Amino acid sequence: MNSPAVLNFSGGPGALPDAVLRETREAILALPETGVSVLGMSHRSDWFLALVDEAERTLRALLGLSERHAICFLQGGSSLLFATIPMNFAGAGRGLPAYVDAGYWSARASAEARRAGGCRVVWDGRESGYRSLPELASLALPADTRYLHYVSNETVEGLQFAAPEGEIAAPLIADMSSDFLSKPAEVGRHAMVYAHAQKNLGPAGVTVALIDRDWLERIPDGLPSILDFRTHVAHRSNYNTPPVFAIYVLTLVVRWLAREIGGLAAMARRNAAKAGRLYATLDALGDAVTVHAGRRWRSTMNAAFTFGDARLDQAFIEQARALGMIGLEGHRSLGGLRASLYNAVTPEAVATLCEALADFGRARA
Amino acid sequence: MNSPAVLNFSGGPGALPDAVLRETREAILALPETGVSVLGMSHRSDWFLALVDEAERTLRALLGLSERHAICFLQGGSSLLFATIPMNFAGAGRGLPAYVDAGYWSARASAEARRAGGCRVVWDGRESGYRSLPELASLALPADTRYLHYVSNETVEGLQFAAPEGEIAAPLIADMSSDFLSKPAEVGRHAMVYAHAQKNLGPAGVTVALIDRDWLERIPDGLPSILDFRTHVAHRSNYNTPPVFAIYVLTLVVRWLAREIGGLAAMARRNAAKAGRLYATLDALGDAVTVHAGRRWRSTMNAAFTFGDARLDQAFIEQARALGMIGLEGHRSLGGLRASLYNAVTPEAVATLCEALADFGRARA
Repeated sequence: MNSPAVLNFSGGPGALPDAVLRETREAILALPETGVSVLGMSHRSDWFLALVDEAERTLRALLGLSERHAICFLQGGSSLLFATIPMNFAGAGRGLPAYVDAGYWSARASAEARRAGGCRVVWDGRESGYRSLPELASLALPADTRYLHYVSNETVEGLQFAAPEGEIAAPLIADMSSDFLSKPAEVGRHAMVYAHAQKNLGPAGVTVALIDRDWLERIPDGLPSILDFRTHVAHRSNYNTPPVFAIYVLTLVVRWLAREIGGLAAMARRNAAKAGRLYATLDALGDAVTVHAGRRWRSTMNAAFTFGDARLDQAFIEQARALGMIGLEGHRSLGGLRASLYNAVTPEAVATLCEALADFGRARA
Repeated sequence: MNSPAVLNFSGGPGALPDAVLRETREAILALPETGVSVLGMSHRSDWFLALVDEAERTLRALLGLSERHAICFLQGGSSLLFATIPMNFAGAGRGLPAYVDAGYWSARASAEARRAGGCRVVWDGRESGYRSLPELASLALPADTRYLHYVSNETVEGLQFAAPEGEIAAPLIADMSSDFLSKPAEVGRHAMVYAHAQKNLGPAGVTVALIDRDWLERIPDGLPSILDFRTHVAHRSNYNTPPVFAIYVLTLVVRWLAREIGGLAAMARRNAAKAGRLYATLDALGDAVTVHAGRRWRSTMNAAFTFGDARLDQAFIEQARALGMIGLEGHRSLGGLRASLYNAVTPEAVATLCEALADFGRARA
């Protein structure tokens, strides 16, 4: 379901379903239902209000999410939320929030929380090179912990949390950007979950936030209006001009997930099979390849690995490119290789990648 | 140059050039130069870095802007900048910034500045119903005024400043969202100019900011990284994932302006002719129609007017819709009618609108 010529394994912005791209293409000149380009549709139009309704309704159905959580479509990506979550929820003088530093992205989140008024890093994987994850329920958390923040899938290192189990001593806030909607997830047990679009949801430029409405009462007055989560909840994601096009594509994607894929359990089976095949291929190469993540924490979304030196990795990137595969460079902070297997990456694309990896490994054995 | 069936006079998101829509349409499945959907292109790709370079270079050429100003592509629209400009530039304890309240949008800007630490409203058009504008050079400004903020075109009321003339006693910061690139403008004499895309630049979701580099030194330390303008300048608009698609369309639009239209002077002539024709048509209707803005301050971009009662205005909206014209409803804060004549609205579209207005007026005379 990638575009015809190229298989896209990019860490994001990444592949989108082919059916979504085809429908989007038609809407650029004129949406069938309005006759107007999707790029010229007013955010105050009935069409757009109905679109946001559908996006929200479909997300609720996919996630089994009740009205206890508000759904907002925001701009600024996770990076803006790294700053605004502490502003809204860290609550000066009422105990610090706790952060799990388990990879590149969670470390960026805690750095912003530190700037915003402080946080407690309750688990730090940096010294061990971000190769493993903690059990959230086993973390020692002070009783006054405002919330426990974690990143459910570390895109750079290829580490993924299982669904949180057991009693966790603080309310949870999760950045699920890179595995949101890839499998059923207990989003409802979180005070807040957020995910930017450019992995599984759509193009860059929109971020979904699910916020427990009870938590809105904790927000201090006096924040800039646009950084106060209550503004977006009250205005139903239409306080200022929202990114209409990105929300349109996102709506097509969740519609595709619900109707074509059949929901998150079906998506999870497909994703598990894709990742299983990739890791089996890598493991079969033995010492020729090293997967960054410890086995227990391997991500179904992103596999970070290396053939052991930069020259070999580059050779594989070029060989893959010649076969129509792109986006396999590792993140600039880690180097090596990375294959991202987001929802829209097809089993066939993964099979093609696995064949290329096996061929490359054999030729060097 | 609207899409074939419909003429879009919306206040924004609004019409885009037909040539841009056609090229965008092709890029949804696969960009010719990469074979990958524009929606799946990485923001770290050579293609995207070159795109941002071209956008910046073309903007500099169109505006005659030197390297003294940095150019950034941001998310969050004017509404986020209403909050972050005071954070970055109001400078606690060193004199307040001054704001011109001349319409719906400038009043929102000053409201956020007030929340952020205070501002002085040095001109307030609210009581007179936002029908006129001051001369910026004639405003009484305290010597310690940090900057003077104004909105160059008030989209809701249809008021537009002429280019600022004479000595102005404070550095200027302008929200030019709704007339940016509609005519030559002395952006270089401003400390900062900003404009969101969804009027003349592209789809909603990206905002251009032009910032005098000397002003970056005034920014206090300790701001959230993503709200500190230095972050975006240092990372060349690639600190976090930028809205790749919106920047792509924006680049096509500025390319169209430079190559097809022939620059801002040519664009200004075309826009002046469009607006001239519309206002002449309205004036010819005599007492049957009231233009909101005082004659001296009428905007070339947005004409707000009314046939005198809501029933008549609604009748015109319906008659226009039957002729393929949309987006003529006034802003919800003002009611009435509004015709927006952004760059991509063609002279032919304006002619069609003028005929419909004249017919409607005659039928009621």
